[in-house]
Amino acid sequence: MHRHDLALIGFGGVNRALAEIIHSRGTALADDLGFELRVVAITDLRLGSLMQADGIDLEAVFAMAEGATFAGMPGGAAVPQNDFVIRSTTADIVVEATFTNPVDGEPAVSHVRAALESGKSVTTTNKGPVALAGAELRRIAEEHGARFEHEGAVMSGTPVLRFASDMLRGTRISGVEGILNGTSNFVLGRMEAGATLAEAVAEAQALGYAEADPTADIEGSDVQLKVVILANEILGAGITTADVVRRGISAISPEDIAAAAAEGRRWKLIGSAVRTPDGGVAASVEPVALPLAHPLAGVSGATNAVSFDTDLLGTVTVSGPGAGRMETAYALLSDIIAIDAHQRAGVEAAR
Amino acid sequence: MHRHDLALIGFGGVNRALAEIIHSRGTALADDLGFELRVVAITDLRLGSLMQADGIDLEAVFAMAEGATFAGMPGGAAVPQNDFVIRSTTADIVVEATFTNPVDGEPAVSHVRAALESGKSVTTTNKGPVALAGAELRRIAEEHGARFEHEGAVMSGTPVLRFASDMLRGTRISGVEGILNGTSNFVLGRMEAGATLAEAVAEAQALGYAEADPTADIEGSDVQLKVVILANEILGAGITTADVVRRGISAISPEDIAAAAAEGRRWKLIGSAVRTPDGGVAASVEPVALPLAHPLAGVSGATNAVSFDTDLLGTVTVSGPGAGRMETAYALLSDIIAIDAHQRAGVEAAR
Repeated sequence: MHRHDLALIGFGGVNRALAEIIHSRGTALADDLGFELRVVAITDLRLGSLMQADGIDLEAVFAMAEGATFAGMPGGAAVPQNDFVIRSTTADIVVEATFTNPVDGEPAVSHVRAALESGKSVTTTNKGPVALAGAELRRIAEEHGARFEHEGAVMSGTPVLRFASDMLRGTRISGVEGILNGTSNFVLGRMEAGATLAEAVAEAQALGYAEADPTADIEGSDVQLKVVILANEILGAGITTADVVRRGISAISPEDIAAAAAEGRRWKLIGSAVRTPDGGVAASVEPVALPLAHPLAGVSGATNAVSFDTDLLGTVTVSGPGAGRMETAYALLSDIIAIDAHQRAGVEAAR
Repeated sequence: MHRHDLALIGFGGVNRALAEIIHSRGTALADDLGFELRVVAITDLRLGSLMQADGIDLEAVFAMAEGATFAGMPGGAAVPQNDFVIRSTTADIVVEATFTNPVDGEPAVSHVRAALESGKSVTTTNKGPVALAGAELRRIAEEHGARFEHEGAVMSGTPVLRFASDMLRGTRISGVEGILNGTSNFVLGRMEAGATLAEAVAEAQALGYAEADPTADIEGSDVQLKVVILANEILGAGITTADVVRRGISAISPEDIAAAAAEGRRWKLIGSAVRTPDGGVAASVEPVALPLAHPLAGVSGATNAVSFDTDLLGTVTVSGPGAGRMETAYALLSDIIAIDAHQRAGVEAAR
C-alpha cells in the first residue's frame, strides 16, 4: 500500500484534529482509503517546528505539557521556521492551516507558494490564499505538477467545490447562492425568535460560534471571501473581493423581521454569484427576505448551505456544517483523497 | 477522443430526453466530458427496435409520425426484440429505462442481466432491478468486467448514491434518512395549507406529480424500494422490501397536522435506514412530525432530500429534484460519466 507523508503547517484545532483522525483510525482508515498517512513535519507559532522523516510520534506530541515546545524532541526546534520546513520536508503533501488574513492572505499565501514551488501538493482550509491568490497558486501548482486543493475554504468539510466539479459534471451551472456564515444565520434565527441583534450576537459568542469581534460575520466580509472563491472556482469569474457587492445584517431591524414574517418570508444573509447575459458574473452578499418555500429558507442555526442552479437538473442544494474542528479537518482529509486520486491517475497515465 | 456507443432500452420520456441532450449538445458536451456519445440501438414497446452500428440519425427518430414504428428505417423492426438487441448490439453501454415493476422487477432485471452477461455496462433509473436484484446484478457485473450504475433509482439526477461513495469517503455513515417521494411531500404541504388528503392528491394529479393510482406514493411503497436501495448500497445492509417497516400518509388527519403545527412541528414522510448497535440496519418508511429546525423540515413541494449522518462531518443533506424527464436523463448521463471514469482507470491500470 502506498503512503502520503504530511507536513502540518499550523497546529491549532484543525490540524490537531486531522492528526487525531490519522492516529486514532490507523489501519482502518488506510484500508478504507487505499493508502496510508504519516505525519513527518509539524510547525506552529507556539510550539516551534518538528521534522522526523520516518514519522512523528503523534502520541508524544499530544502528550506535550502546556507551554512546552518541540525543542526538546529529536528534529525539533522552538521556532516555527515555516518556510524552511515547507521547502525541506520529505512530505509530499503540505497541510496549511494557519490563520486567515483577509487583507493579503499572508503568511498562508507564502506557505502555499513555497510548497507548490518545491513540487509538493497542498491542502488548505484557509480562505485567504484561495480568495486572494487562487489563480496564481493554481498556475504554480500546474507548472510544478502539484495539486492545490482547498475544499474547506467554503463550508468546512461539507462538499461544495468538489460537488460542483464532480457531482454536477455535464450540467451548465448558471449560478450559486448560499448561506455561508453560521454566526450570522444563527443570529438571524434568534432575532426571528425575538432577540435583539446585540443579544443574539452575545448568545452566539457564548456558544462559541462568534469571534470576540463579530464584524466579519455580521457585516458579510467572511461571506464575501467565500463568494469570490465560489465565483472563481465554479463559474470561472476571475473576480476579486472588490467586485462583490456587500451588505451585512446589522441594518436588519426587528420591524424588518416582523414585516417579512407577515409575508411568509424569512431574512437570510445570502452570498451569490450568478452568470449575467453579457457573459459576466454578478456577485453579492446581502440580506434577502426569502419565501419560506425557498431551498435556503429552512436552513437554520449555524448550518450552512449552497444551492446550484443548473440547466439539466434545476436547483440542487447541499447543506451541512460550515465550521467545526473535526468537520474542517475532514475537509483536509477529503483534499488528500482527491490529491491521491489525481496522482494515481497521473501515474497510471504515464506508464 | 474516445467514444461510447449507447443502446437505449425503452424510448419514453427519459431515454428520449437523454437522446435530446446528446443530439442538441453534440461537440460541446463531448468537449466538456472528454468523450463522445453515440446512440447505436433503440428499442421500445410501441416503436419496435432500431440498430445502426454507425450511429442512429436521431433527428429522423425525433421526426417520426405518431403511430409510426422503426420498421420503415434501415436496421429497424416493428417489434422491440429487447433481449436480441441487448445481446447483439455494438453498444458498450446499455441504458435501461423501461417501467418499474415493484413485484419482481421484470422485464428490467432480465434486460440488465443480459447486458451485463454480454460484457456491456448498464445504467438504469429503474428502481426495480436495483432494489429487487441489486446484489445479483452487481455480482454479474463484476464477473464480466462491466459496471452497473443506477444513480437515478433514487432522487433522479440529484446525486445521492455517488454522493455517499465519492463525497463522504473516509467518514463512517451511521444512517440515512430522506424525503424520497415528491408526491407525498407535495400532498403533506397542501394539507398543511388546509386541503384534505383527497383534494391534495387531486391537485398533485392535475400538476402531473401523481399517477392516476397514487397508492405507491401515498402508502409509501415507492419510498420503500428507495430505502432498500439506500440501505443496501450505502450501509451494506443486504435487506429486502420485507425488512422495511412501512406506513404511508393516508392516516394523517387535519387534526394531526394542526397538533404538530402547534408544537412547531411538520409532518414528513421519512424513509430511513440506520445502523443499530448490534451491527444490523433498521429501515422504515413512516410519517414523522419533524421539528422545524430539522434539515428535512424545510424541504417543500415536490423536492426530495437525503440527510447522511456521519462521524467526522455530522449531518450533511442533499436536496433537489426527485423526478422529471430531463432531471432523470441527467442521472443516466452522470452514470455514463462514472462508467467512463472507471473504464479509463481500468485501461490505465492494465497498461
